[in-house]
Amino acid sequence: MKTSKEITINKKNKFGAEILCIGSEILLGNIVNTNSQWIAAQLAILGIPHFRQTVIGDNPARLEEAILEASNRSEILITTGGLGPTPDDIKTKVIADTFKTPLEQRNDILIDLRNKSKDKVSKLSESQKKQSLVPKGAKIINNYSGTAPGIFWSPKENFTILTFPGVPSELKEMWAKEASKLLISNNLSKEVISSKVLHFAGITESLLADKIQHLLISKNPTVATYASTGSVKVRITARGKSSEKTNRLIEPIKKELTQITGLKCFGLDNETLEEIVFKLLLKRKETIAVAESCTGGGIGSKLTKIPGSSQIFHGGVIAYNNSIKQRLLGVPEEIINTHGAVSKQVVESMARGVQIKFKVNWAISVSGIAGPTGGSKSKPVGLVNFCIKGPKTLITWEENFGSNKTREDIQKLSVLNALDRLRLSIIMAN
Amino acid sequence: MKTSKEITINKKNKFGAEILCIGSEILLGNIVNTNSQWIAAQLAILGIPHFRQTVIGDNPARLEEAILEASNRSEILITTGGLGPTPDDIKTKVIADTFKTPLEQRNDILIDLRNKSKDKVSKLSESQKKQSLVPKGAKIINNYSGTAPGIFWSPKENFTILTFPGVPSELKEMWAKEASKLLISNNLSKEVISSKVLHFAGITESLLADKIQHLLISKNPTVATYASTGSVKVRITARGKSSEKTNRLIEPIKKELTQITGLKCFGLDNETLEEIVFKLLLKRKETIAVAESCTGGGIGSKLTKIPGSSQIFHGGVIAYNNSIKQRLLGVPEEIINTHGAVSKQVVESMARGVQIKFKVNWAISVSGIAGPTGGSKSKPVGLVNFCIKGPKTLITWEENFGSNKTREDIQKLSVLNALDRLRLSIIMAN
Repeated sequence: MKTSKEITINKKNKFGAEILCIGSEILLGNIVNTNSQWIAAQLAILGIPHFRQTVIGDNPARLEEAILEASNRSEILITTGGLGPTPDDIKTKVIADTFKTPLEQRNDILIDLRNKSKDKVSKLSESQKKQSLVPKGAKIINNYSGTAPGIFWSPKENFTILTFPGVPSELKEMWAKEASKLLISNNLSKEVISSKVLHFAGITESLLADKIQHLLISKNPTVATYASTGSVKVRITARGKSSEKTNRLIEPIKKELTQITGLKCFGLDNETLEEIVFKLLLKRKETIAVAESCTGGGIGSKLTKIPGSSQIFHGGVIAYNNSIKQRLLGVPEEIINTHGAVSKQVVESMARGVQIKFKVNWAISVSGIAGPTGGSKSKPVGLVNFCIKGPKTLITWEENFGSNKTREDIQKLSVLNALDRLRLSIIMAN
Repeated sequence: MKTSKEITINKKNKFGAEILCIGSEILLGNIVNTNSQWIAAQLAILGIPHFRQTVIGDNPARLEEAILEASNRSEILITTGGLGPTPDDIKTKVIADTFKTPLEQRNDILIDLRNKSKDKVSKLSESQKKQSLVPKGAKIINNYSGTAPGIFWSPKENFTILTFPGVPSELKEMWAKEASKLLISNNLSKEVISSKVLHFAGITESLLADKIQHLLISKNPTVATYASTGSVKVRITARGKSSEKTNRLIEPIKKELTQITGLKCFGLDNETLEEIVFKLLLKRKETIAVAESCTGGGIGSKLTKIPGSSQIFHGGVIAYNNSIKQRLLGVPEEIINTHGAVSKQVVESMARGVQIKFKVNWAISVSGIAGPTGGSKSKPVGLVNFCIKGPKTLITWEENFGSNKTREDIQKLSVLNALDRLRLSIIMAN
């Protein structure tokens, strides 16, 4: 695919952004470079043309070489990694040296480091202090959850360099809270590229793709599908002079998509299944508890990821062992003996039990064979039973996710499937 | 981290390999570049030094520029993407043009394409035929599951270029069946590079770095630290003529590291905290249950990720709501009223309660303020109380992870901290 920004490039006056990731662990193939992908997506959102990504090791000579190349080729260089306290974290010094600029110790950073250090009495170690040195004249990009701050610095005309740590969560927070705003306020953000993401559950990527063939060939906005374990994403991306214009392009496609797919579409952009369930229950002022066997607390931990979830989530029982199913959830022993722990009868009894014990409106239960062992001809690995008990709802169902799936996938698919059916059950309820 | 191969580089006689991935979808952030990581790992196995990774779009000018740069810098260039039948697949032609070499049509490829095409009667389309053109003198890397073959070609002295399609499965098969053998038979495979990873908990990266300063400057093996939320990794990487030799280099450093850090080091390579806890309990033939408030089932779901965890894990209570702490775990109401749900008294009572109810040897409980709301001056967001009750063990402790942390981080840190203290408690137990 050739993007219009690439067609319009003029090699005479350099513009656009490059990403430079520093870390020998990437070159050794020990970790996947997800930072580049995340930053690339953010640049697209800001409409900043992006032509090149580079990865090099923690090596001063090669780092300086790469920085110089980029400064002659592009308007913006975004770097990750190589900050931090250890001797191999050499980025800031190399950047300063590359542009013959001295480092200065910044007191505001020292104070911040001191506040962040658990032990308030003893002095900061030399390696900690190193993180307070930045090139003279550089703006600071504050690091909220970690220690090493980044910089926003224009060492020469028509070239700005931004530095971030390699830890993804720190990078993302620093970008959202400060870096993106700096890029915009310094007029480095060009034509707007907006996109809207729709999330789907209970449908495969190819089935969805077949339903929306005619949209997938659209040029502006473009429509693309992405599959991940248990869910599918559709991204609508539009390019235009303003976000009003791009949104006007996106809206009708979004509307058509949701009309075609109906309830299969559960959320927009960053919405998660658990968030939707939370909102639905909050609106109904109803509560829920979980009874989990093979998911071992996975549904509960998803629901509690949401701030304020205590308003709807009372808790649950992780009934991993059969005796717990009996003693805590009141599942009759004979049901387990007759039908087995992985059966409609047992999950229904688990759901009824937790609903009564926890005095909640809704209960959801799961019992299955996550594997790799424990499967049989009649009950293979990947077989999972579910039950949802609501004020006027009682549904039990069985899924066979397939014996070829990993234990991790079967657990993940079980959690997603449970949350999606719960979402539908609440929507359907009276 | 600085690898010794990087120190021994001599910019006069270029050596080592680079990876060049072609595809605008990577630059747009639509897909993660997993090919680079996979190839990097293969290069390490073959002992081929690897210094740089680049990504560019489907753009002839920039592609030629990147190929030329690499040919002056490195001995090997491995490229992915830009093959295939569509008009934007321009790689092979650009490579030939870059080194002023004509393309020739290869009959063996034509025959292969014909055999692969579903429809045996009608002629191959022009776009299909395009895939049979390769630079004069290039070897072919056959594509077994896809159509477009790759090439193995030395267009100039001391420079070899390998091309692959962007489809990971095709790339991997072509590498395993042909490319790796070609690299070895052409003496491009140098020394062996092996590494060992040590995992640490309960210590910060900078504190650890200060303890092992003298090791961090070692050249072969090299030693480097990596931080992630709640844990730290140390990688020891050695290079030598054989894996026996590299292991002999790694062992003493590994031994010294574990001596310096003692119990802070919890595992090797791919071992996880929950796995260690599982193994420790299995060895003692003891069982465990959890009582989780702010982690909402996170500890349970970690423990159940391990195959066979049912041998040690009986389950637990997600006591998110105070009434559940009372009714299911028997926490006296007055304790909650006097000390608050987040207190040593409550977590101890939760642990005792779940240990009795679940008839297990070990119990672990957590109650804290994950935020973003619900904090107070005396009990800020990030404050978490824990208790571990064992056959002869009773410890309660409090952590303050900091109000600057996200809800997600506080929950994650709580789970890791709980599992790590559990590991230590079991080790310490008689």
